[in-house]
Amino acid sequence: MSTATEDPTPLSYKDAGVDIAAADRFVGRISKLAGATHTPGVVWHASRYAALFRPDLGAMEDPLIAATCDGVGTKLLVAKDVGIFEGIGRDLVAMNVNDLLPLGARPLLFLDYLATGKLDEGQLEAVVTGISQACREAGCALLGGETAEMPGLYKKGDFDIAGFAVGMVDGARLPDASAMKAGDVVLALPSTGIHSNGLSLARKALFDRADLPLNRPVEGLDRPLASELLEPTALYVKPVLAMLEVATVKAMAHVTGGGLIGRGEKLPAAGLRLRLDPTTWTRPPVFDLIAKHGNIEEEELGRTFNLGLGYLAAMDRDQADAVLRAFPGTWLEVGSLVEGDRGVEFA
Amino acid sequence: MSTATEDPTPLSYKDAGVDIAAADRFVGRISKLAGATHTPGVVWHASRYAALFRPDLGAMEDPLIAATCDGVGTKLLVAKDVGIFEGIGRDLVAMNVNDLLPLGARPLLFLDYLATGKLDEGQLEAVVTGISQACREAGCALLGGETAEMPGLYKKGDFDIAGFAVGMVDGARLPDASAMKAGDVVLALPSTGIHSNGLSLARKALFDRADLPLNRPVEGLDRPLASELLEPTALYVKPVLAMLEVATVKAMAHVTGGGLIGRGEKLPAAGLRLRLDPTTWTRPPVFDLIAKHGNIEEEELGRTFNLGLGYLAAMDRDQADAVLRAFPGTWLEVGSLVEGDRGVEFA
Repeated sequence: MSTATEDPTPLSYKDAGVDIAAADRFVGRISKLAGATHTPGVVWHASRYAALFRPDLGAMEDPLIAATCDGVGTKLLVAKDVGIFEGIGRDLVAMNVNDLLPLGARPLLFLDYLATGKLDEGQLEAVVTGISQACREAGCALLGGETAEMPGLYKKGDFDIAGFAVGMVDGARLPDASAMKAGDVVLALPSTGIHSNGLSLARKALFDRADLPLNRPVEGLDRPLASELLEPTALYVKPVLAMLEVATVKAMAHVTGGGLIGRGEKLPAAGLRLRLDPTTWTRPPVFDLIAKHGNIEEEELGRTFNLGLGYLAAMDRDQADAVLRAFPGTWLEVGSLVEGDRGVEFA
Repeated sequence: MSTATEDPTPLSYKDAGVDIAAADRFVGRISKLAGATHTPGVVWHASRYAALFRPDLGAMEDPLIAATCDGVGTKLLVAKDVGIFEGIGRDLVAMNVNDLLPLGARPLLFLDYLATGKLDEGQLEAVVTGISQACREAGCALLGGETAEMPGLYKKGDFDIAGFAVGMVDGARLPDASAMKAGDVVLALPSTGIHSNGLSLARKALFDRADLPLNRPVEGLDRPLASELLEPTALYVKPVLAMLEVATVKAMAHVTGGGLIGRGEKLPAAGLRLRLDPTTWTRPPVFDLIAKHGNIEEEELGRTFNLGLGYLAAMDRDQADAVLRAFPGTWLEVGSLVEGDRGVEFA
């Protein structure tokens, strides 16, 4: 409430809550983590305004750029309650690179946006450590991004993160849903648990309604809720790209917002529905715990959570057999396409 | 504070503060705005997990992907105080696509991340309207992004935005700073005002210290501070790409964080410094107003704000002459490179 005439102290950008030197220090610390992810495609240029990458266009008939943008939603708030942040870095990468896969695109580079009220270097370095590890596993180069300090929008200790991934795919090899027919097989990759979707509903059921403890054992789970809910989203890059080397698929789904039913019903072409056999996979007990404490109906549960399946792929019987032979124990045969209106049935 | 046994009402995702139907409605409204930006490179595929784009690789010897990620910083808070949001959508696009230009990359596609506590469709539609207009002007396709509702992280009415742009450049035509020499000419494009950097310091000086009004005339400005501070960041895509058609440049700078001095001193190669002639451009009065009320030293001012120049390009004398002839009134000759230690001098 002071005025210019009352306070003659020269203002600096640091006084305004923005410490460029601290931000530069942070950038220095995370650049090592980023460097560890660099692949042969990374191109250095003196002008550091943008990331630069040389894609291998070798055998592509029709090179297409694929790009995704996603965050981790309210899983951030669970991480904050628990004080563990590496995992959500992995979630951020997984939510983005996994979304490139249904097009058959290979992830090439990743950028992150980190926004906070006041830079907590330790906290955000943990996030970037997780991002770096996941990028290495995905063969995707972390090529920078933006760290924004916004005093006034985020409270001290609060922050948000968003990720962006770029990949490439040969347009001549895009999955072709028009070839789908009844009898096609649906293979799946298991989820590691709740992944990064439905946390708002889970928190409401488990904490607001049931007041369950975060760090002590809970009936029905073999570990505390903190570990269960913060288990990072599975990275599907390796198994999906390896599978695409041996099989031709017709459509794929990354099971995220909308849950297994919402995503599953969009997998088949018109005139077909997805029939899933629930005996073919293990439903993680956390979903039953959430359903019980929130008194959540089965349909709502299936339209919010992945229920144990994180990735789906539809293909011909012979292609599925080749995949099951090539990668025993990795892909599960969970169902098939049947004639009927768009939807998912469990039978 | 209730428990599951006390409250048997079935919980839904909507009860948890996430209204998927409202989100879907919003997506429908903004998809029209996005569609208006589509260029011939946009590829549609039934699997909507990622954006898909066919770059024109025609004459490129060495096709490279360039990517940027940026937000608009605390300019958001000014927009919120004033209640006008189109402009920051334009800022978001400009901050990203302008950052592709110093590499000579042409922007191809844009994705946005919008995060809020509770979806305010009107507010975010205004942001996306600005994004859409700016993408059209930049010839860049808005290909989606993520709208995240995060009750618990953002307060009602609060939101954050981040952007992500992808472009391509021919590696054989990257600016080559090693060819720089004393006597090279520096051309510039004027800024439209404060752009999207230094708003934290500006707000501290103008509002916290001086308590100036947002919406009434202020001495030294010909319009209210609300209009002055929210003037969108200039889009430099057209003038820079047109300039690159007629000239070979050695280095370029988008004047953002670090200000005219911080960005300007990184423009020359080692052993050279940037000499700027302040009589060659008009310094917008808003910077003097901020300096006066914050009692800010000139060096700090120049390391925070663009001081009227938003984009710099260094090149040979004959190339500069060709640009000045081809685009009279667009590019300004503002200085040159001189021998000496890294730095910026005003003379």
